[in-house]
Amino acid sequence: MSVRPVFVVAGIGNGTGTGASTARLFAKSGYRVALIARNPEHLNKLAKEINDAGFEAAAFPVKDYAYQTVLGVFDAVRAYQWSGSEKAEVRVALWNAGSAPFKKFLDVTEEDLARSLDSHVTAPFAFSRQAILTFQKNEIDSLGRRGTLLFTGATASLRGNVWTSAFAAGKFGLRALSQSLAKEFGKENIHVAHNIIDGGILTDLSAARREGEAREQYINNEDSRLSPDSIAQSYLYLVNQDRTAWTWELDLRPAHEKW
Amino acid sequence: MSVRPVFVVAGIGNGTGTGASTARLFAKSGYRVALIARNPEHLNKLAKEINDAGFEAAAFPVKDYAYQTVLGVFDAVRAYQWSGSEKAEVRVALWNAGSAPFKKFLDVTEEDLARSLDSHVTAPFAFSRQAILTFQKNEIDSLGRRGTLLFTGATASLRGNVWTSAFAAGKFGLRALSQSLAKEFGKENIHVAHNIIDGGILTDLSAARREGEAREQYINNEDSRLSPDSIAQSYLYLVNQDRTAWTWELDLRPAHEKW
Amino acid sequence: MSVRPVFVVAGIGNGTGTGASTARLFAKSGYRVALIARNPEHLNKLAKEINDAGFEAAAFPVKDYAYQTVLGVFDAVRAYQWSGSEKAEVRVALWNAGSAPFKKFLDVTEEDLARSLDSHVTAPFAFSRQAILTFQKNEIDSLGRRGTLLFTGATASLRGNVWTSAFAAGKFGLRALSQSLAKEFGKENIHVAHNIIDGGILTDLSAARREGEAREQYINNEDSRLSPDSIAQSYLYLVNQDRTAWTWELDLRPAHEKW
Amino acid sequence: MSVRPVFVVAGIGNGTGTGASTARLFAKSGYRVALIARNPEHLNKLAKEINDAGFEAAAFPVKDYAYQTVLGVFDAVRAYQWSGSEKAEVRVALWNAGSAPFKKFLDVTEEDLARSLDSHVTAPFAFSRQAILTFQKNEIDSLGRRGTLLFTGATASLRGNVWTSAFAAGKFGLRALSQSLAKEFGKENIHVAHNIIDGGILTDLSAARREGEAREQYINNEDSRLSPDSIAQSYLYLVNQDRTAWTWELDLRPAHEKW
Repeated sequence: MSVRPVFVVAGIGNGTGTGASTARLFAKSGYRVALIARNPEHLNKLAKEINDAGFEAAAFPVKDYAYQTVLGVFDAVRAYQWSGSEKAEVRVALWNAGSAPFKKFLDVTEEDLARSLDSHVTAPFAFSRQAILTFQKNEIDSLGRRGTLLFTGATASLRGNVWTSAFAAGKFGLRALSQSLAKEFGKENIHVAHNIIDGGILTDLSAARREGEAREQYINNEDSRLSPDSIAQSYLYLVNQDRTAWTWELDLRPAHEKW
Repeated sequence: MSVRPVFVVAGIGNGTGTGASTARLFAKSGYRVALIARNPEHLNKLAKEINDAGFEAAAFPVKDYAYQTVLGVFDAVRAYQWSGSEKAEVRVALWNAGSAPFKKFLDVTEEDLARSLDSHVTAPFAFSRQAILTFQKNEIDSLGRRGTLLFTGATASLRGNVWTSAFAAGKFGLRALSQSLAKEFGKENIHVAHNIIDGGILTDLSAARREGEAREQYINNEDSRLSPDSIAQSYLYLVNQDRTAWTWELDLRPAHEKW
Repeated sequence: MSVRPVFVVAGIGNGTGTGASTARLFAKSGYRVALIARNPEHLNKLAKEINDAGFEAAAFPVKDYAYQTVLGVFDAVRAYQWSGSEKAEVRVALWNAGSAPFKKFLDVTEEDLARSLDSHVTAPFAFSRQAILTFQKNEIDSLGRRGTLLFTGATASLRGNVWTSAFAAGKFGLRALSQSLAKEFGKENIHVAHNIIDGGILTDLSAARREGEAREQYINNEDSRLSPDSIAQSYLYLVNQDRTAWTWELDLRPAHEKW
Repeated sequence: MSVRPVFVVAGIGNGTGTGASTARLFAKSGYRVALIARNPEHLNKLAKEINDAGFEAAAFPVKDYAYQTVLGVFDAVRAYQWSGSEKAEVRVALWNAGSAPFKKFLDVTEEDLARSLDSHVTAPFAFSRQAILTFQKNEIDSLGRRGTLLFTGATASLRGNVWTSAFAAGKFGLRALSQSLAKEFGKENIHVAHNIIDGGILTDLSAARREGEAREQYINNEDSRLSPDSIAQSYLYLVNQDRTAWTWELDLRPAHEKW
């Protein structure tokens, strides 16, 4: 029985950002796509779009990113009955979810912090646990992999700053997790990689924050903001690295970004 | 009315480690010492020892390191009536608490992770909030400071590793917090510093894990383990830096440590 | 007049390592290839191999990696008359040369150090100067680039260690250069990237250091050493990134590498 | 025969910066002070000042910071006949010299780069060689040390930037050296430490670049520039750390520095 790989992504926003672009690219590249997110409307819309384009996607809404919720939804992904006769194997998993409260330190509430830690650390621990347990049962493929576990980081993964105390606390923790996993599971041929997005990403939301000409310029000036499709390409590249040369971490920023 | 500074420390273990040594050193150096910890027995023993030596200490037991608990105990520290006629001002606060689960990733439970995040990130956010709010009301002193906020880090603050996924996730987060705070509150003359302890610390507990000759050698070989008293000296040094040259981060390790 | 891009690479060793693999891959991908190296025999052999395969390569031997020598050879590359009617434009340049003295500190001679600094810092400054001046005259292409400047780094780019004082001093310097250039010339749509090779690379030389079964295992065990061809793929990926999402730095290591 | 320690410092500028302040502080703290620098006038003035204050200093002018020159001057320091009957032992050595060309990349000349590499890498290699060889002959003292080797770093030790390509290439290299040495010679009880000065230092020269009120404010506003005397205190602290808790690296910046 032939095998068709499944790509699981958690966090697709309103369907115009990194998670959605990566889902589309992996669908086109031969993966079945399992979409996990909190907003069922955006989720179903993206699944429909991918299915309508002739690929395969399934939507897995969650009510929150609590540890047990994430364990549960990953079980549902594994149990899902895809159409067609090929065996489904989860081969790639991307944690792309998480909230980013930009607040000065004294404005950060207990709840802001909890949400940041839940979505950037606790939920990814549950997600990673399920991904690792799944990958361990896969055979090693021709490129030397049992599976690839991907994480989306940010500038706040590397630096705490005035507006990012709660966000950076979570993103630093996520980076630590990705490094621990890379070191522990590389030797089982499970590839773990962390992608630092160091700049603003063009989405419906980020564009909507501007008006008139500034909005046009923001959308059209490719030198100064990241395209979700380009970030998606970086994930596809990471997944296709063979066992002799795996990347743990890369950074991405627009050509004209000041850093 | 003359002022006598208060040093608040959270996390004193069994009274033979970093927190306790730092409390003793600051007591000798003219500070009143407020001790926060979970184990009331160790806590009271240390407070008594410091008071018996002719200095001033007060014990503030907590049932856990939940956010609200930490907010509350800091209020209690501020409200405490010290003996003597001098005004008490909290001038230095050290977060030294936190659990370190050393487990392979798949053995880390939801509870292990929660305990690590609570004690390394959530509780320090509450502790820092109270410290900052307190310091903001202090006058700038002769060295240019309103207050000093200190954090104890570890090797796991810089690197995730096979046995440290949950520990590093917390310690990375703590380091992010300390950097955000240093950047935001330096300009209010509040000094924030982070101390990376990169090696084993000699305590009753770490010694008790060895037996016979190995135990003697561990205790006596000063080249291969850190002394809590030496770590305490580093905190006193950081506190005494004047406003023109503040350290955010330093590392400490024994002379013969392999790194 | 149509344009055919030129790829310049300095450092091709004995033709079985990173530089040679990257030259072959770029030749296959539509680039004319300018090869710079010290050993004319290896150099001519590789140029012949690429030309015999139906691609275009030219050999530029240098007597050393002195600053003026490197300025001069880059001039020669620019002036070279390629066959065919298409205009030649240097679009990608890779500095892959440099010596790696593994010696304990007290065994490092003045000459060892000079060779490391010359090949890892001084020569790349000259090479980068020429590449930048060349790229500045190119038009921005469809992916938003005037040119891509690539550097090969190593574990010693990130950590000094007992055996690597002279090597790391050079490699740290090269990393600094690559970061300065990325920050200064990104805004002119010149992409600068640095690749950290964190592990042993399979070459004729590294294989020849082993014997019998150990040699066979080293060659065949793809989990424990890097393939030059895989490193070459990473350079091609970096070159093909569009302007919205450029990587400055990535790391590469075998699946089973301990790090 | 009692021993009186010698402190060797290379790089004292015009006598108003870090090197000079550290020399004064170590003189007051019981060290004989050997001063190495290029400008004999500033050098002799500082030596005279220290001697006139009742301490002991000797001046060692050098014509340049070439490798052999530095080897030679260190020999001269060791052979120097100090007054008094106590044995002289070089116990602390600080490399504080080096030029900082702030130029955009295309303005950096071959000579700028050579000067940066000579003074930040090559000369410190020679200086370190002599310091290590000297320290290896010392007895371990009561704090567990044979000697302490110190380096002055800068923001450019951690980040390359538009104006600092040549400076950062040298300073990154110096940081690599200090880490290699710390790792290799810690186990021989030789302490190596690196100090990152992340901000402007108040000196006659930096003050002279301002005029009128701006100059007064720069001198008097201790929140926004480093005092050489405070940096000197950090070196004294590093030297006095006992063997159980040595720092390799710390950073120093003014309270109000933006970073």
